[in-house]
Amino acid sequence: MKDGIERMTKTNAGRFFEDYTIGQVIEHAVPRTVGQGERALYHALYPARHALYSSDAFAQSCGLAASPLDDLAAFHVVFGKTVPDVSLNARANLGYAEGRWLKPVWPGDTLRSTSEVIGLKQNSNGKTGVVWVRTRGYNQKDECVLDYVRWVMVKKRDLEAKAPETVVPDLKSALDVSDLVIPEGLDFTNYDFTLAGEPHRWGDYEVGEVIDHVDGVTVEEAEHMMATRLWQNTSKVHFDGTQREDGKRLIYGGHVISMARTLSFNGLANAQMIAGLNAGAHANPCFSGDTIRAWTEVLDKAETGAPGVGALRLRLVATKSGEAGQLKGEDGKYLPGVLLDLDYWALIPV
Amino acid sequence: MKDGIERMTKTNAGRFFEDYTIGQVIEHAVPRTVGQGERALYHALYPARHALYSSDAFAQSCGLAASPLDDLAAFHVVFGKTVPDVSLNARANLGYAEGRWLKPVWPGDTLRSTSEVIGLKQNSNGKTGVVWVRTRGYNQKDECVLDYVRWVMVKKRDLEAKAPETVVPDLKSALDVSDLVIPEGLDFTNYDFTLAGEPHRWGDYEVGEVIDHVDGVTVEEAEHMMATRLWQNTSKVHFDGTQREDGKRLIYGGHVISMARTLSFNGLANAQMIAGLNAGAHANPCFSGDTIRAWTEVLDKAETGAPGVGALRLRLVATKSGEAGQLKGEDGKYLPGVLLDLDYWALIPV
Amino acid sequence: MKDGIERMTKTNAGRFFEDYTIGQVIEHAVPRTVGQGERALYHALYPARHALYSSDAFAQSCGLAASPLDDLAAFHVVFGKTVPDVSLNARANLGYAEGRWLKPVWPGDTLRSTSEVIGLKQNSNGKTGVVWVRTRGYNQKDECVLDYVRWVMVKKRDLEAKAPETVVPDLKSALDVSDLVIPEGLDFTNYDFTLAGEPHRWGDYEVGEVIDHVDGVTVEEAEHMMATRLWQNTSKVHFDGTQREDGKRLIYGGHVISMARTLSFNGLANAQMIAGLNAGAHANPCFSGDTIRAWTEVLDKAETGAPGVGALRLRLVATKSGEAGQLKGEDGKYLPGVLLDLDYWALIPV
Repeated sequence: MKDGIERMTKTNAGRFFEDYTIGQVIEHAVPRTVGQGERALYHALYPARHALYSSDAFAQSCGLAASPLDDLAAFHVVFGKTVPDVSLNARANLGYAEGRWLKPVWPGDTLRSTSEVIGLKQNSNGKTGVVWVRTRGYNQKDECVLDYVRWVMVKKRDLEAKAPETVVPDLKSALDVSDLVIPEGLDFTNYDFTLAGEPHRWGDYEVGEVIDHVDGVTVEEAEHMMATRLWQNTSKVHFDGTQREDGKRLIYGGHVISMARTLSFNGLANAQMIAGLNAGAHANPCFSGDTIRAWTEVLDKAETGAPGVGALRLRLVATKSGEAGQLKGEDGKYLPGVLLDLDYWALIPV
Repeated sequence: MKDGIERMTKTNAGRFFEDYTIGQVIEHAVPRTVGQGERALYHALYPARHALYSSDAFAQSCGLAASPLDDLAAFHVVFGKTVPDVSLNARANLGYAEGRWLKPVWPGDTLRSTSEVIGLKQNSNGKTGVVWVRTRGYNQKDECVLDYVRWVMVKKRDLEAKAPETVVPDLKSALDVSDLVIPEGLDFTNYDFTLAGEPHRWGDYEVGEVIDHVDGVTVEEAEHMMATRLWQNTSKVHFDGTQREDGKRLIYGGHVISMARTLSFNGLANAQMIAGLNAGAHANPCFSGDTIRAWTEVLDKAETGAPGVGALRLRLVATKSGEAGQLKGEDGKYLPGVLLDLDYWALIPV
Repeated sequence: MKDGIERMTKTNAGRFFEDYTIGQVIEHAVPRTVGQGERALYHALYPARHALYSSDAFAQSCGLAASPLDDLAAFHVVFGKTVPDVSLNARANLGYAEGRWLKPVWPGDTLRSTSEVIGLKQNSNGKTGVVWVRTRGYNQKDECVLDYVRWVMVKKRDLEAKAPETVVPDLKSALDVSDLVIPEGLDFTNYDFTLAGEPHRWGDYEVGEVIDHVDGVTVEEAEHMMATRLWQNTSKVHFDGTQREDGKRLIYGGHVISMARTLSFNGLANAQMIAGLNAGAHANPCFSGDTIRAWTEVLDKAETGAPGVGALRLRLVATKSGEAGQLKGEDGKYLPGVLLDLDYWALIPV
């Protein structure tokens, strides 16, 4: 090269399909301490209003020591760490399953992540393959705070590399309520509906009901990049505007998840905590200038053993156009205005 | 509707004029714990430099336990909670009066708000009415930290609804210095003017004096949305770009207040604390791309009983064009470049 | 003026060349307490991933009490305070030398700055002069945490003012490793390379080696203004879009430094701490819409007395175009795509 300087490759090129083996456990860098700063930023970046994450006093009235880090912020931090090892060479983020929030993340906790390879399937084109990983987030006491399965389509480095034995993991289409872990001490018997913002309790929601969350947020480049960096997600497409003619950057799917979930406050203010992630699809890409709206369909209801705590299984849909309740076309494909289809379990006072 | 799914309305439609009655007390959702994260964001969003809010050590040298949350940040948090109940169907924010900061808000405090309806007057067109509320912010010890009166023009839901008896509250045109509450322990006798940034003390300001704060800040969509969300203000016009052809969003008036107040550091660096809000008008709308400047006119001066602490009554004007000192045209209306006309009491070393 | 109102000048006009004298010590306003909020914002504004600043647990495993404020954040806070006194009337920021990080800045620390004038040289045109200052940052215990020399070209107020005696300070072209102060207790003998993100240690880097950090970030107005305000840097050109036809604002050079340094994680993940600043040039201006990339050349290597701690002297180059390794043209001038040329010492496990 010019100047006669030797240039070395010390940068991370990411893993390719043939770099994964069943049973392999990848320890992800970089551990991260979270606290009040992340809480404030979550409130600045999203219209977050769920009282349990907004007020220490409210969280204490629900039996917790303090307001934990927002469940999705915890998810993003754990997820972000996996990007350099799992999705740098991914062509597509195909799905999520069996996500469980196992312990609240408290201010001052330090999170790290690992991913175990639980499935591999080379595609018939021989150029890519699907990798299933079970990712686990741990706090500084090595307690698992969150785990979920994610699968991505990854490029092969060497098209001649031999296909691995196909292993497709047996995943639940949805968690059973008995799979959910209710945070220790959680008690909704003295729940203050006035402070929480809405009177609707578990019994007021019916399976099949659709809630239009009404509000919209037009998203900006600076906001989604700040959010995505905050979770130390390093995927180039979110930051580098030179990759597209219009200079726009592909918005991290998790930004859409958090925007939709926080918009869902209006109609689901009491669906305080996320306890399980059953499935999720990023149906269409989101760009700066899009106005995100959200609607929810109630998929299931269940009681939990915790005092005053019920569970709702909810389909949360984010859109950039289209009407509430409209998800797929006659061809069975997501409508072009649908950004996200997320299936999760929330905890709500009975 | 399509899919045969029943869609229910659980979202907040806001209150209409006929929903208010004299004496009614509305408890607003959602309580909010504030701390170091909000302080850092306030410094990132505004050119905030007043030493008492920047440095714990400086605040301690002034007799306080630590640096409190910025007075305007406290105002925005308390105000934001009232939006879903008071101004979702408001056509105009008409005024403020009798605002008093009663106790500093400390990091870790949890704030909630209530509003008492103190005035009602249906407009002659029969379509709208004016609602006066006295809003109070409380901390987690149920101490009132802030109260102020605000009045808004609200739409009627049912044009046939009978007009309520007209009650127009008797409000002070300006607080007297004896109405102000000086924070317990505040003592400016050992005030460090060098660290604070300017030598000008109470005695250096004259009634009638106009200070051009010189600096300008061109505002961006991402910034005002982050600020407005941070205070959990949910008014749609600030976030949803689909409401206007140009995709611009109306900037929350409080963003302009904070921008002007922080710009006023340059010339009023020692006007450390806001103790009273006499009046305020959002003269013209502000949009992304506007360059906000500010000027101040000294309206009054008074001594307080606290050691070394004087008070200045100041008119703070934010502009997007025009010269310092120019406020209204010959027709008595605000000039088109004036964004804000705010009348407040500040505490400053004598 | 109009209205017959007297307008007074209480705003800071900045210092001009003839206002500086050798030996003069300027105490800068405004002290600033830093903490978790600043840490979170640093992670939101930059792709910051160095483990020692991301995780309290990781910092503790390296012998520190907790994760300190990022070294460059500390630099920006100290630097920002000097702007109203040193660079408000500066025509150019000419250079840095002899920068040393003397103590970590911990969450809760309060920083203030002073600058001592150590050099003066009027330019031959008689209109401007060069001022050299040694700036020191102190914490609330009056311990010096950081010092560096900076020189700027400043306008004269009065062209007739007599030129001062020329004093050009004798500055080191680069610090010797023995000049560096290793943080008390720092110990890399149990360093966890997996958690840190890369396996490359001190011994793996060779003098002359060039590392292309690969990633790019397209920068936005809202981001650089938030960053620059966070450090209370008040230079008008960063905020006031009316100064240019296109409404763009000149991006604070320190924003480019932090962007480049954090991008350098990819290839230099273990160059954890910055201990010395040898030199720096802001080669070309940076504007919103530019995509910043970075490359590093290894300039020197040295051992330190601390357990497991080695030092690398690195040239960090930020670009908006051009290839890694290309710095200057045949005319000896920086290529137009080069934004920054920074020469610093980093601490890395041996």
